[in-house]
Amino acid sequence: MTSSAIDVAPILETILDGRTKGIPATTAPFALGDIADKNWNVLREDMPLPLMVLKRSNLDYNAHVFLDYLSANSLSLAPHGKTTMSPQLFDEQLRHGAWGVTAATINQVQVMRHYGVSRIVLANQLVGKSNVLSLVADMNSDPGFEFFCFVDSIDQIENIQRHLENTVQSRPIGVLVEIGASGGRTGVRHKEQAMAVIKALRAAPDQFSFCGIGAFEGAIPGLEQSATPVNDYADLIIEIISDTPQSAYADLDEFILTGGGSSYFDIIAERFKTLKISVPVRVLLRSGCYVTNDHGACRTAQEEARQDPNRHWNSEFRPALEVWSYVQSLPEPGLGFLTMGKRDVPFDAGLPMPFKRYRPGAGFLDVGECDIFSTNDQHAYVRLERDSDWKVGDMICSGISHPCTAFDKWRFIPVVNDEYDVIDGVLTFF
Amino acid sequence: MTSSAIDVAPILETILDGRTKGIPATTAPFALGDIADKNWNVLREDMPLPLMVLKRSNLDYNAHVFLDYLSANSLSLAPHGKTTMSPQLFDEQLRHGAWGVTAATINQVQVMRHYGVSRIVLANQLVGKSNVLSLVADMNSDPGFEFFCFVDSIDQIENIQRHLENTVQSRPIGVLVEIGASGGRTGVRHKEQAMAVIKALRAAPDQFSFCGIGAFEGAIPGLEQSATPVNDYADLIIEIISDTPQSAYADLDEFILTGGGSSYFDIIAERFKTLKISVPVRVLLRSGCYVTNDHGACRTAQEEARQDPNRHWNSEFRPALEVWSYVQSLPEPGLGFLTMGKRDVPFDAGLPMPFKRYRPGAGFLDVGECDIFSTNDQHAYVRLERDSDWKVGDMICSGISHPCTAFDKWRFIPVVNDEYDVIDGVLTFF
Repeated sequence: MTSSAIDVAPILETILDGRTKGIPATTAPFALGDIADKNWNVLREDMPLPLMVLKRSNLDYNAHVFLDYLSANSLSLAPHGKTTMSPQLFDEQLRHGAWGVTAATINQVQVMRHYGVSRIVLANQLVGKSNVLSLVADMNSDPGFEFFCFVDSIDQIENIQRHLENTVQSRPIGVLVEIGASGGRTGVRHKEQAMAVIKALRAAPDQFSFCGIGAFEGAIPGLEQSATPVNDYADLIIEIISDTPQSAYADLDEFILTGGGSSYFDIIAERFKTLKISVPVRVLLRSGCYVTNDHGACRTAQEEARQDPNRHWNSEFRPALEVWSYVQSLPEPGLGFLTMGKRDVPFDAGLPMPFKRYRPGAGFLDVGECDIFSTNDQHAYVRLERDSDWKVGDMICSGISHPCTAFDKWRFIPVVNDEYDVIDGVLTFF
Repeated sequence: MTSSAIDVAPILETILDGRTKGIPATTAPFALGDIADKNWNVLREDMPLPLMVLKRSNLDYNAHVFLDYLSANSLSLAPHGKTTMSPQLFDEQLRHGAWGVTAATINQVQVMRHYGVSRIVLANQLVGKSNVLSLVADMNSDPGFEFFCFVDSIDQIENIQRHLENTVQSRPIGVLVEIGASGGRTGVRHKEQAMAVIKALRAAPDQFSFCGIGAFEGAIPGLEQSATPVNDYADLIIEIISDTPQSAYADLDEFILTGGGSSYFDIIAERFKTLKISVPVRVLLRSGCYVTNDHGACRTAQEEARQDPNRHWNSEFRPALEVWSYVQSLPEPGLGFLTMGKRDVPFDAGLPMPFKRYRPGAGFLDVGECDIFSTNDQHAYVRLERDSDWKVGDMICSGISHPCTAFDKWRFIPVVNDEYDVIDGVLTFF
């Protein structure tokens, strides 16, 4: 890896104290960059639980696995920054070859811009006065800032234009026309709509620059049954682009074709690579969750991809997030409670899964049969064997399902080595 | 109201910029305390959406309604701080007569202590080295800090004691023995367990001070059918205390008996007030959600209480939280998307409910038939009438269900008057 891609040094100067979840009150305020000097170790109970940690070794492993895949397949990556909203992780992703970073909101763009990300895809509709004016002011202040957003309707174009009337634009806003699937999320549904939007964009060249097509296959109908709808959706997109008059893009240096979340990026990549038009095509994936993967929905999606003979994904990401909590109460045989809840762990795509147990003074113990079946704000309910030997004060390590709703519950996340020494820390900006 | 109860002035000096959700990038960094000088108005689109706002008038209304109820019934309140984690709101609650503030974790205690809250109930089990040592260090540093935590097992007592061996305690830790319900959450289940825990606490008077009983009626089984289990649970608690030998509490200045979340506090208050023992009893409620109430689960709970002839709650809280977002896409007849999602609004106890629509340049319009049926990280899916006149760029105001999982999605929340002028702002510390 090269040195910093963006300027995250100011983050390391952030002063942390006991107001931040994960920092003990017994510590004097200190700069994040000095955290390794604390010589904290999670197993030694130097930090308060609950605590979500990032495992350095698995972060690095995933970065290299994905880089290898992208290189072997001539793909570009603008990892979805909404997953982590951690500029320090954006920096790692850019140093590992990411072409840009993806955002879901203008506020996320603002965080990325603050730390110097120079190429951003807003994979969402830009709309509204403050959002438009904030973006244009930023574009005007930095000629090196490359920006693209999704557009899927004439109404949206007119909304942006109404706000542009009150400002001066140094250059047009880069636009990717979003194609959606019927019954799915945002995006035009038919070729005719796509053509109409492209035409309206090209009719306002001082305001907009049509740069390609955007898609998201993770929110189309039918995925609960199989991955087949992804193929159909990708085919629709290829068909629409193939049918688009060449004049719509003939003046582009390259045509951006972007899709690919964390579950079906391999299918999207395979299909999108088949597009042949008169200008070079940049197939741009936007996966966000590969960076940490998980023990739940992401892992399952990876396994399904590997087991499907029609798919070409044979690698494996490793889970880099763990949440540690204490057994706080065992009030009845077969029932236990952990000191973590909705404020600490995701609960939208499966509950956390305990997989390690550590007893201070005794070391690692078998975690046994256990199942988290509910969470309150700050409690996890665990079903145990009636003769479980869990004890109040045992430290339980759980994997999570859905990194996006794990990161947003922590402003500070320690980075640990395999011995659980705290060797670094990242901040998030949600 | 008197002047500040705690020291929140440093919060007002916090510098905000476009990295904070809700702050436009077009604004130079400014101190939170100067926000009113910005003359921002939400309807004028001065701030980026999505945006969650606090309505000043309803905050004040709720504070007064609850104060009247507490006064009329000789009840004390330690509002659950976990709901808002906003020291500025804790300050308002203390100025409105709250006896203390409730926390769910030691990290929350640390935030409260940082801003000078002097009486805290940790309505949860204290456990683990860093948590215990952080608490004791804080108690040692401030003789005026009154602290109480829940204990529900001998194992928990021994866990705390093991960590206390390595420190010096200036005074014992205040303890409330938690009584739970069978099949419910934490807390001892039987009288014998309660007695054993009280005995162990009283056997270690340098380490623990037994101060009363803690309970939480909101997590007992059977509440999906009716509120009846709350009565049975309260009766069990009264029975256990009545059967407790007087020697266990005869030396107390007062006996603390605490329960009462946001849905059944009136039942708990009525029952707990009947306890007559040889020392004065302080009936302490811990409701957190009254401060903002909501348009969903909390409102429903209030209505059920008012309609039940056996209950004595006849007042009404008003919803003080609103989330504003844009219509970003209307890709099919009857289907719309809003620029807000799991990162912005609660989804654990019902999805947001649109109830106002504002079109910039046109004013308020009928919101029409609409129903949010799903959320992604940054999108809300809306079912509309097929001939809905919603338009991309319309501003939709939604009520939320469950304040606890609304506040934790925003680090900054503007406070608005009824005209949506931004007159103040609060920060949260999750």
